[in-house]
Amino acid sequence: MSKPKVFEKPTGVKDYLPHAVAKLRRIERDVLECMRRWGYEQILTPTLEYYDTVGVASATSDQKLFKLLNHRGTTIVLRSEMTSPIARVVSSLLKDQPLPLRLSYHANVFRAFEEEAGRDAEFFQTGVELVGEPSPEADAEVIALAIASLRAAGVPSFKVAVGHVGFLNGLFQEALPGRTEEQESLKSFLLQRDHVGYRDALRRLTLDDSVREELEGILRLRGGEEVCRQALRLGSSEDAKSAIRQLCEVWDVLAAYGVQEHVLIDLTMIGDFSYYTGITFEGYASHLGFPVCSGGRYDNLLSQFGRPAPATGFALKTTRILEVAESEADEEGGRTLIVYAHDQRREALVEAERLRAEGLQVVTEALDPASPEWAALRARAARVETFAHRGREYDSLLVYGIGEGERA
Amino acid sequence: MSKPKVFEKPTGVKDYLPHAVAKLRRIERDVLECMRRWGYEQILTPTLEYYDTVGVASATSDQKLFKLLNHRGTTIVLRSEMTSPIARVVSSLLKDQPLPLRLSYHANVFRAFEEEAGRDAEFFQTGVELVGEPSPEADAEVIALAIASLRAAGVPSFKVAVGHVGFLNGLFQEALPGRTEEQESLKSFLLQRDHVGYRDALRRLTLDDSVREELEGILRLRGGEEVCRQALRLGSSEDAKSAIRQLCEVWDVLAAYGVQEHVLIDLTMIGDFSYYTGITFEGYASHLGFPVCSGGRYDNLLSQFGRPAPATGFALKTTRILEVAESEADEEGGRTLIVYAHDQRREALVEAERLRAEGLQVVTEALDPASPEWAALRARAARVETFAHRGREYDSLLVYGIGEGERA
Repeated sequence: MSKPKVFEKPTGVKDYLPHAVAKLRRIERDVLECMRRWGYEQILTPTLEYYDTVGVASATSDQKLFKLLNHRGTTIVLRSEMTSPIARVVSSLLKDQPLPLRLSYHANVFRAFEEEAGRDAEFFQTGVELVGEPSPEADAEVIALAIASLRAAGVPSFKVAVGHVGFLNGLFQEALPGRTEEQESLKSFLLQRDHVGYRDALRRLTLDDSVREELEGILRLRGGEEVCRQALRLGSSEDAKSAIRQLCEVWDVLAAYGVQEHVLIDLTMIGDFSYYTGITFEGYASHLGFPVCSGGRYDNLLSQFGRPAPATGFALKTTRILEVAESEADEEGGRTLIVYAHDQRREALVEAERLRAEGLQVVTEALDPASPEWAALRARAARVETFAHRGREYDSLLVYGIGEGERA
Repeated sequence: MSKPKVFEKPTGVKDYLPHAVAKLRRIERDVLECMRRWGYEQILTPTLEYYDTVGVASATSDQKLFKLLNHRGTTIVLRSEMTSPIARVVSSLLKDQPLPLRLSYHANVFRAFEEEAGRDAEFFQTGVELVGEPSPEADAEVIALAIASLRAAGVPSFKVAVGHVGFLNGLFQEALPGRTEEQESLKSFLLQRDHVGYRDALRRLTLDDSVREELEGILRLRGGEEVCRQALRLGSSEDAKSAIRQLCEVWDVLAAYGVQEHVLIDLTMIGDFSYYTGITFEGYASHLGFPVCSGGRYDNLLSQFGRPAPATGFALKTTRILEVAESEADEEGGRTLIVYAHDQRREALVEAERLRAEGLQVVTEALDPASPEWAALRARAARVETFAHRGREYDSLLVYGIGEGERA
């Protein structure tokens, strides 16, 4: 184990320089404002949680949790997601608040990187939880809000794929009754979106031709409203049919929101999180191989914290969105450089304060009027609209010279 | 070691509910905007740093660092402050950027709590670093910006105490030459602001009466510009006198900024951080026993990261400011509740979108017009300006009933 070099930082974590921070902040602000307008209120939870409470309840696999021991020997985790901490708060500090609760957050979350070289160990998520509403209106609300949030973030082109965990569970249960291992194996191919592997696995199983055809047919269940009708013809599992009926209801509400152009029904989708209990969804931006948002219904989590309640929500993968969001950081207004001779200090600093109060960005610098820098600065500034000084760009220059304030 | 209860979180960390988050976010936004207007650009560094780089360089004592081991057996720390991480970035990613650099941040930082029961293990700091400027103008700039930031944060009444590490070092060196342990003991009383203890310790030391009087006189060195003149008469240490002359120059620049009413010269002040090399300062709000901001010059830190440069900066203790800041969260505009019968869903959701686009906060709910809730809601809303529904306050109600949209 070698000592890190002084300029190094741990694997999987990042520094964000001003340009990136400005863009990240713009996305954060616009997405949280969008969520506020939908009635969601921000909460903030600590970075550190107990392993035995939030750590165990979270959907993150154990080996991906960042763990440390506190001085009492209790295992602490760095939060890996925000849904479980919020479930803890809803069941404790907010336990007397009536449901439904609409909560939003922007937070950094952590994943130990042993298992995923090259992936981020720390990244930002911006999301919501809608706790206490079992209705299809609630499922549709969070999907429509995810779409509004991706728009607010400036993601130029995206689709949200919507599925239901009950459909595949029901279908597999009917087609492969009791063959749990084979069911899990097939699901894991779908989870990885490995359709070739799924077909190969189907071929290797001992199955009636009709069942094999039915299970292969799943792969075609991606598209618009018509997918629901096709799915209802597959098999006769009551669980699967009930899932499809729920999906149809959510589709109807999404149609009322007028957001169908962004929605794709995808019955091959299996939520990444084992705790989803109903509708699940993932957002995909064009030209990106990974989801920019994911969410769904998780009706069993809250009971683990002692306040049973249905719930649904989503998280934007804000760090990834930073790479694709189109709009840049806000224009920052003018940048002004004020240079001054010592005897004009007060006038220069008072003017700086006045301009800052107007919203301008102002840097001040005491300079010797006899210095070559003073002359160079004035000559350069007179020639061009914008100019550089000590590595920074400025739009305007004010010079407070000996005995007089002058504007260049 | 007992298992934590499901609703518990680790000692020293907090949940922030919506009202507190809104206020914290308001402070964060206004302070960062103030810093931007002074030409400071935000950067963001990871929560996790190597112990051997940033951990060792930070001013935080070793036992207050949160440590964990990564899978390679390297010790990682949760950042305890932002100055060292920024020094690392200035020396690596920004190494080709000319100085001076003006950088700002808002970040959560961590302290292991073994030694300080009841203190926060995680809290927010908002601050700046001005790297590459050795001048008194730079010292005064960060003090004036600290004052502007405290104002922007909404701290109603505060003073910034300004001192210089060179003064006490020079004076003690002259008065107690070679008696390092006694010097350290006296300084630790001053650091804890224990003036009674300081006087007692002085009495116990073997000292000439004139020296004792001189060292007691230090305690009176708090006030305006006159303190500098008094201090110049104490002893004859060249280091102490040079420190006072620097302080006078900074005072002059602060006078040009017009912020003297907020400044108190306090030569009894010893910066908390061992790495300060010149001017140090601390901000105190009325009725609060602890500083709300601290900063100073640290000219030796950057060289530890391979890019020697003078530097100065400060951090606002944002979590503490939350308790004293006067202005509340922004008024959020109106809160509207839209309830709708199923057959009016589209009209209701379209209207919700229209109002959200105007900046209003809108919650929608599907409701059965035959339900007692529907009747109750309409009756209540007709009577009062604001009304409560499922635990939330609303300012206006829109009802989309069967076959017609109506506004209550």
